[in-house]
Amino acid sequence: MKILILNSGSSSIKFQLIDMPSEKVIGKGLIEKIGLPDASITVKNSKDQKEVIRLNIPNHSKGIEFLLSVITDEKLNIINNLEELSAVGHRIVHGGQAFSKSVLVNDDVMHGIEACVELAPLHNPANIKGIQAIEAAIPNIPQVAVFDTAFHHTIPEDRAVYALPIEYYKKYGLRKYGFHGTSHQYITLRAKEIYGDDRTSKIITCHLGNGSSLAAILDGKSVETSMGFSPTDGLMMGTRCGAIDPSTIPFIADHEHLEISDLSDLINKKSGLLGISGVSSDYRDVASAAKKGNKDAELALNMFHYDVKKYIGTYMATLGGVDSIIFTGGIGENAKVARKIICSGLEAFGIEIDDAKNDAVMGIEADISTDSSKVRICVIPTDEEVMIARDTFSIVTEAKK
Amino acid sequence: MKILILNSGSSSIKFQLIDMPSEKVIGKGLIEKIGLPDASITVKNSKDQKEVIRLNIPNHSKGIEFLLSVITDEKLNIINNLEELSAVGHRIVHGGQAFSKSVLVNDDVMHGIEACVELAPLHNPANIKGIQAIEAAIPNIPQVAVFDTAFHHTIPEDRAVYALPIEYYKKYGLRKYGFHGTSHQYITLRAKEIYGDDRTSKIITCHLGNGSSLAAILDGKSVETSMGFSPTDGLMMGTRCGAIDPSTIPFIADHEHLEISDLSDLINKKSGLLGISGVSSDYRDVASAAKKGNKDAELALNMFHYDVKKYIGTYMATLGGVDSIIFTGGIGENAKVARKIICSGLEAFGIEIDDAKNDAVMGIEADISTDSSKVRICVIPTDEEVMIARDTFSIVTEAKK
Repeated sequence: MKILILNSGSSSIKFQLIDMPSEKVIGKGLIEKIGLPDASITVKNSKDQKEVIRLNIPNHSKGIEFLLSVITDEKLNIINNLEELSAVGHRIVHGGQAFSKSVLVNDDVMHGIEACVELAPLHNPANIKGIQAIEAAIPNIPQVAVFDTAFHHTIPEDRAVYALPIEYYKKYGLRKYGFHGTSHQYITLRAKEIYGDDRTSKIITCHLGNGSSLAAILDGKSVETSMGFSPTDGLMMGTRCGAIDPSTIPFIADHEHLEISDLSDLINKKSGLLGISGVSSDYRDVASAAKKGNKDAELALNMFHYDVKKYIGTYMATLGGVDSIIFTGGIGENAKVARKIICSGLEAFGIEIDDAKNDAVMGIEADISTDSSKVRICVIPTDEEVMIARDTFSIVTEAKK
Repeated sequence: MKILILNSGSSSIKFQLIDMPSEKVIGKGLIEKIGLPDASITVKNSKDQKEVIRLNIPNHSKGIEFLLSVITDEKLNIINNLEELSAVGHRIVHGGQAFSKSVLVNDDVMHGIEACVELAPLHNPANIKGIQAIEAAIPNIPQVAVFDTAFHHTIPEDRAVYALPIEYYKKYGLRKYGFHGTSHQYITLRAKEIYGDDRTSKIITCHLGNGSSLAAILDGKSVETSMGFSPTDGLMMGTRCGAIDPSTIPFIADHEHLEISDLSDLINKKSGLLGISGVSSDYRDVASAAKKGNKDAELALNMFHYDVKKYIGTYMATLGGVDSIIFTGGIGENAKVARKIICSGLEAFGIEIDDAKNDAVMGIEADISTDSSKVRICVIPTDEEVMIARDTFSIVTEAKK
């Protein structure tokens, strides 16, 4: 069964074609700069043959149309025709309090996703456009919604509510939701596949990339995570500030003559590694600037590493111990220096990284702890698309019965 | 040497008279509701004889005048005349980046404290009024400024800067300062006095009261604390929300039609235990409502206990271990249930509370850990006034040489 996986952003659509249950990726690509003059589609087949087409893509609907025509293009030999597609799986950013697992899309589900637009005004509208564009292009193909928030539904209420007046929680659903759920879940399942019952009860998953979050996993279930009401909460990130003293907001607004409408840009686009280093939101650029002596870049790195270490400590307390710490995401999979610095100083808790093993690991599954380390430290590259494909496959298969 | 200790708030002045170096409290009291029709002065002598006077106290200056006349009142026999007073020590909330220790007040110091008004607009002006009132009433008496932020000056920069655009740090000094410094320092010194070198290297001090903060102490120095730029940061408190997802602020402002000028009240006066429980900002009232079945009060308590536990985990990671956890403040000293719940689940880290010992302790110094607990858990009632008296005594003595 061939499944198309879509991750629709405000001006981009990432996609993969995955054959299930083999989980073989038979094609993938990216539509970029929708609505801009230099829009493009990039597609790769399973032999890594690539095609880049620059063309006018005024909206998501046109983008999906082009995408479907490119993947059926015989040169690339991805699929021969659209009848080969059995289902489409969508990454949906916000499922609010309503969606605790992936679901087959129908009218009720669409209303539910629309109801969450208020909670994710930048993301859910693009996700909805993706679903609508598919419905227009391939009417009646089964579509499945996979929510970035769903895996965190098991977090207890008293860890999710903010200590603000409780009516905001009751009226608006203002609480922690958590994000990156599909990634944290994939990592958790994969760890269980690789290691079985060996130290997989209390896991801290560290998804470190341009967006970063940690999660505390108890016996396969998310019981805490660092992102909150929005993906701005928790750790400092590429351009996001993370959790902060809320008093800084009126202070800044006052001194910089900002309006409330300016705040979202400030905390989401001008902060984090970029805001501190002044160099870039990309960890690699910041690390390279720090190496060349840029003190602000060095400060940004130190702050980021310390922030991750702090959350590891926090979740050790939440879990009452830790069996495994798993790194994933662009930084987690590739930045050996980050992993080393984050784990160092935690030896008293049985957390011992093996320098030689750690140095050898970039983007591959590996245990990087010493033989004597009580806690397993490992790297597992994330695969959100496969996770979406699995849910889509099982829901569509079930629905056919 | 008799020293007057003043803690001047916006509408109140707390005071103690302490004989040094004996540290004997010879009198204490409180001026309340300055500027309001029902203003009053309450004074107690060392024999616990009390006098309450209701009178018109239009401002701090008049308040100090009355105070000085009451303590020299022969009925109470606290002091005979003002010549017996050798110095005045003031609690100053914010010392900014300038003051890393207590100092003798002179014109430069006054300018420095005034420069910090921007950082603590609610507190420093009242502190300044206190100093000026004393100068007017007893000209030329040595006055010492003891800063609530000073003890935290040893926190490294990369733990203090917020991941917001760095120019706010450079232009305005927007960073973590930490508060309750005098309390965290007193507890730290007292632990060293009681226990010597036995598990006093890595200490987590938990000051839990109407305002709450934790600090990580390494070899006597503060290396991290939960309050930040303002006393709103960190843990949820009586009426303050603590660290939150900054995205909640524009969301709330938008949905509740709030202006930036409304935010300070929201996060400082309407949140925390009060905001969640709807009952009270006082831990005891909330606990009693929870006992009677109030679900929101129960939620508030659970949130508070969990928050403290989380920060203990965080600072275990900061310190790379923990030797002692010390509880202080109204809740820390008296709420055995809070101490029990906060510590439970942390046994894997060698943190074992002894139920019988814990149950027996209210407001007294005591070790409440089991004999086998690797980490010492103890209660040490705080005494900020004595700490201020010590600094005042040593600075004034030094200045006379």
